[in-house]
Amino acid sequence: MKIPVGIVGISGYTGLELVKLLLNHPHFELSYAGATSQNELKDIFPSLAGVINLKVEVADVSEIKKRCNLVFLALPHTEGMKIVKELKGSNIKIVDLSADYRVSLENYEKNYCPHLDPEGIKSAVYGLIEINRNKIMGASLVANPGCYPTCSLLALLPFASMLESKFGVMIDAKSGLSGAGKSLKASSHFVSVNENMNAYSPLTHRHSDEIKEHLNLNSDANLDVMFVPHLIPLTRGMLVSAYAVLKGEFKDIQPLEILREFYKDEPFIRIRNEAVSIKNVAGTHFCDIYAINKNGKLWINGGIDNVLRGASSQAVANANLMFGFDEKLALPMLSSQI
Amino acid sequence: MKIPVGIVGISGYTGLELVKLLLNHPHFELSYAGATSQNELKDIFPSLAGVINLKVEVADVSEIKKRCNLVFLALPHTEGMKIVKELKGSNIKIVDLSADYRVSLENYEKNYCPHLDPEGIKSAVYGLIEINRNKIMGASLVANPGCYPTCSLLALLPFASMLESKFGVMIDAKSGLSGAGKSLKASSHFVSVNENMNAYSPLTHRHSDEIKEHLNLNSDANLDVMFVPHLIPLTRGMLVSAYAVLKGEFKDIQPLEILREFYKDEPFIRIRNEAVSIKNVAGTHFCDIYAINKNGKLWINGGIDNVLRGASSQAVANANLMFGFDEKLALPMLSSQI
Amino acid sequence: MKIPVGIVGISGYTGLELVKLLLNHPHFELSYAGATSQNELKDIFPSLAGVINLKVEVADVSEIKKRCNLVFLALPHTEGMKIVKELKGSNIKIVDLSADYRVSLENYEKNYCPHLDPEGIKSAVYGLIEINRNKIMGASLVANPGCYPTCSLLALLPFASMLESKFGVMIDAKSGLSGAGKSLKASSHFVSVNENMNAYSPLTHRHSDEIKEHLNLNSDANLDVMFVPHLIPLTRGMLVSAYAVLKGEFKDIQPLEILREFYKDEPFIRIRNEAVSIKNVAGTHFCDIYAINKNGKLWINGGIDNVLRGASSQAVANANLMFGFDEKLALPMLSSQI
Amino acid sequence: MKIPVGIVGISGYTGLELVKLLLNHPHFELSYAGATSQNELKDIFPSLAGVINLKVEVADVSEIKKRCNLVFLALPHTEGMKIVKELKGSNIKIVDLSADYRVSLENYEKNYCPHLDPEGIKSAVYGLIEINRNKIMGASLVANPGCYPTCSLLALLPFASMLESKFGVMIDAKSGLSGAGKSLKASSHFVSVNENMNAYSPLTHRHSDEIKEHLNLNSDANLDVMFVPHLIPLTRGMLVSAYAVLKGEFKDIQPLEILREFYKDEPFIRIRNEAVSIKNVAGTHFCDIYAINKNGKLWINGGIDNVLRGASSQAVANANLMFGFDEKLALPMLSSQI
Repeated sequence: MKIPVGIVGISGYTGLELVKLLLNHPHFELSYAGATSQNELKDIFPSLAGVINLKVEVADVSEIKKRCNLVFLALPHTEGMKIVKELKGSNIKIVDLSADYRVSLENYEKNYCPHLDPEGIKSAVYGLIEINRNKIMGASLVANPGCYPTCSLLALLPFASMLESKFGVMIDAKSGLSGAGKSLKASSHFVSVNENMNAYSPLTHRHSDEIKEHLNLNSDANLDVMFVPHLIPLTRGMLVSAYAVLKGEFKDIQPLEILREFYKDEPFIRIRNEAVSIKNVAGTHFCDIYAINKNGKLWINGGIDNVLRGASSQAVANANLMFGFDEKLALPMLSSQI
Repeated sequence: MKIPVGIVGISGYTGLELVKLLLNHPHFELSYAGATSQNELKDIFPSLAGVINLKVEVADVSEIKKRCNLVFLALPHTEGMKIVKELKGSNIKIVDLSADYRVSLENYEKNYCPHLDPEGIKSAVYGLIEINRNKIMGASLVANPGCYPTCSLLALLPFASMLESKFGVMIDAKSGLSGAGKSLKASSHFVSVNENMNAYSPLTHRHSDEIKEHLNLNSDANLDVMFVPHLIPLTRGMLVSAYAVLKGEFKDIQPLEILREFYKDEPFIRIRNEAVSIKNVAGTHFCDIYAINKNGKLWINGGIDNVLRGASSQAVANANLMFGFDEKLALPMLSSQI
Repeated sequence: MKIPVGIVGISGYTGLELVKLLLNHPHFELSYAGATSQNELKDIFPSLAGVINLKVEVADVSEIKKRCNLVFLALPHTEGMKIVKELKGSNIKIVDLSADYRVSLENYEKNYCPHLDPEGIKSAVYGLIEINRNKIMGASLVANPGCYPTCSLLALLPFASMLESKFGVMIDAKSGLSGAGKSLKASSHFVSVNENMNAYSPLTHRHSDEIKEHLNLNSDANLDVMFVPHLIPLTRGMLVSAYAVLKGEFKDIQPLEILREFYKDEPFIRIRNEAVSIKNVAGTHFCDIYAINKNGKLWINGGIDNVLRGASSQAVANANLMFGFDEKLALPMLSSQI
Repeated sequence: MKIPVGIVGISGYTGLELVKLLLNHPHFELSYAGATSQNELKDIFPSLAGVINLKVEVADVSEIKKRCNLVFLALPHTEGMKIVKELKGSNIKIVDLSADYRVSLENYEKNYCPHLDPEGIKSAVYGLIEINRNKIMGASLVANPGCYPTCSLLALLPFASMLESKFGVMIDAKSGLSGAGKSLKASSHFVSVNENMNAYSPLTHRHSDEIKEHLNLNSDANLDVMFVPHLIPLTRGMLVSAYAVLKGEFKDIQPLEILREFYKDEPFIRIRNEAVSIKNVAGTHFCDIYAINKNGKLWINGGIDNVLRGASSQAVANANLMFGFDEKLALPMLSSQI
């Protein structure tokens, strides 16, 4: 029998991607779909007509408790922790895709708002598998990392302890529009986006501190992070270019060798021999990485599918581990591009 | 043990899509990849790095004979029939994605060039499953339909015998750029295509006569076809708007009822309640159809993924039938869009 | 001294294009900008920073009366006629870009809503210059045609009297997203539009009856119109493919000759020798047309910039004529594409 | 009488843009168009049909000498200097859009190939008006800057002497596809570019040393440059994000004030109050700049139209100055976007 799984916040992009991933999962079965209003799933996502029939219900914790062993919270921040709190004490495992449990209380309250569940933060595990695999295995609450932090951390962590802290790291990130979510904003109108590009929230984006916290937590570094995300006219995909200065003793490193060694057992990290192309990771769980050391200055280049590796497939990978399954189950490896 | 399968012409878009489909197939195994030059598959398609290791060989019929029970020919016209001829007498089943066996000798030589295998045309089955399912099951050579004919015929066939032949059908089709192939042409340059659209080969496109032949062959109609394809700035997807006049006795038909009845047992035809969106079929084997009768004039609207339902997944569906498998095996149902 | 000109509804796409055209006009000067709220023009359109400083005022008819000799109403339907009514009796010439005066009372109330100014309809001139040049010269109220009607009528009118009325005309139209306006709709979100295409309002779009009325009014024809517009992932541009059957006596016409003769004195109609490309008309006032007669069946292909020839530059052309100026003043001829 | 002007290399994107700019110029008249083969200009650029009739000739220096007082060389590197050499001694003023005279001999031969005209380099003026206005006025040979250097230098020069040389500057640049030119390459195919993005020539792009040379030449700085350009799926536009560390004594500067002061008399530099949007500069000669100082670390953000300010309109601006005209003549200020 399959494990009954719920998704709360099913009507957004990450909700849809979770549904599609679960449809291919051998052990999980989507049994509960919650949103802010009732609907047929195929009316929200007409592409699912003829594929799955499921009623979307008004999200209700008592139903989740009755009908799920695992729940994905695909919600805006603050909405995630409300449900986590209500589920406390149940045996339901939770992967929270909101920002609510990703960073320290201090970091959270600086960037978001007062936290409703400070205790929860301590027990939550940051769901970046390549770093926290073992902790995730025993976790009942996993905070699914943000998309920019996922890509930035995977690119930077192998080098963190080799970098000049005086300079820190400069991260120039580029994301497709799915990262901006489904809600209607002037900045997401086709006419605004098409034939345009621009930085947004430069140096103030909330993911900046998420990157910094986990970069320093997972290394002996104490690096400052300058983070500038850009909006790019495509739907799916995220590219990171990180710039840093190597400490004197590391100024001659071969970054590709370091990357290959660091990630040698990782099935979803590919070290490339040339600059990363989003085409190769779109539709997959892969993170592609490339790097160059030029006279002691380092350029690191990473790319992911922001909705999958940066959200939904990472959430499924975390759930796989939490239930002791092969972490690769149902994770997509084939690019949707040609 | 899986059935060993070859692809000749693997370096194009349809070759890549075939590879990806076969990687998910429970009974077929890609054992031979032929092209015009030697290479690593992952060097042609960097998205396949970490997924499959396969050497691409210079296509050689004697190798195919030794190593394949099934071969997909993803080749330009004339190249398909050369290999088919050489494979004659072997037990290898063939799905030819070129134009070489799709139409009558006369029709072929009018639209393409002298045919090298007129006998072959007679034994080949036109691989439009919804129409020729039984014939395909026994076939050893299947001619995989063109993309425009696939979408146009699926939209039109339920109505063919109801249409005024004096008027015929007017087909206004729109395709994404993958339909134009991977070769470098001024008309495929990003700067040419982006923020542009235009008809091409209006009323003279070769698919016009393919549509006409099979439309009349599969009905008691004798309809002329006006066919105008358009190039649209997107990668994947094909939309057909067909216009026709209903004969007097059919002027009050409910086209959606007719469609639902005609396709009631078909798992990959979805009758929609509103105009078709490419988003819903992109990445899938589905053909979505919608139609309106307005005072005896009919508008029929169909949409497919041109590289999948219009080429590679249709080829796999044909192969499934030729080997007696469930035709749905490995056919994608989940849109790659969000 | 230049003629003082106002724009009401300046914050939309047509408002912006009007501003840009007027900045290049030798005789008109933008002196009044009205919208629903106060603002700096450069704050609504940051591209105008360093180019023009103008306060946008809450639209107020008494101000218009004091400060303008000409006003462009770039408003939604019903909003146009409210202002027209209030301006009655003044000497201010009006180009109304809304739908309010484009069609007969009956046609309007069928497609829109009750009309507030039925008398006005009679005095308004339909501003399709190639057809109504002389009437426009003496007009004080010009109804600027819809974008689809502009392109469809220019393509069809030369042939209207030659077409089989039993069949009518089938118009398959494709538009970029600017045609859908600046307001925030799920169907205009970048992620919805990108890599998608679809018909909308098939056979029921309001422009259908506008086309039909003026097609029959300006010819001895009595043609029915089947009109299906499609949304295409680009910003600017509109393509029309019209299908029709020629009457017996016209079945051998050379359509390019007819077009060249019909438009021989027109500076902004270009008869092409191949299918129309949107690239060539984007950013200009041109309408490009091409046509083929195949055995008595006709395909006519027209293309315009929907925001310019289909709205703002057509409005300026009308204003030029209303004031007795050379109609070509300030009309753009150079494509914005490369 | 207007000054007769030639363009050599008219069939590329910069050639087309030059034609369009010259059509609006009050004092220059396009009298000579050279390319590698004979043609009608409107057959190369169908958008110019009905606008200009001009024969394109096989480029021939003796004709240029007879018929031009000014010539724009819109040619690949090495082709530019060949013609410059042949024109030596004539009175013809030259704006060379190739790379041939932009940098020192050493820098050139490191990045390109042996130089054919080392003397010429010394007499050529680097045509970045905001820096070299006076020198350009007296010049007979102007080297039109590269697109990336134009945008990077305009963003960086106001700060060059304030930056920590140990760190240097990290320039993350993004360009639309027009920057890759009109020639057919796999990397410019629509299907490759659409829904993709990637860095190219990271840290090795030839513009890197052009930026470095002029950055240090025009300041007392000695800064190293890490330059990584990216290909973005849009046609027109270039964005630069530059990262640097301020020297201790400058760690509290207000970068917007510095920019406003530095460029206070410049009509085509706009200092923005938020991150630069390509939409605002597309189709214009403007360079928009924005910057933030965060704890002594600086982010500078610049944007231009790569084909205009990064090539053709900059060339016209240089020509304006060389002939003593108002430098603003014919330079576009109105964005082509809405």
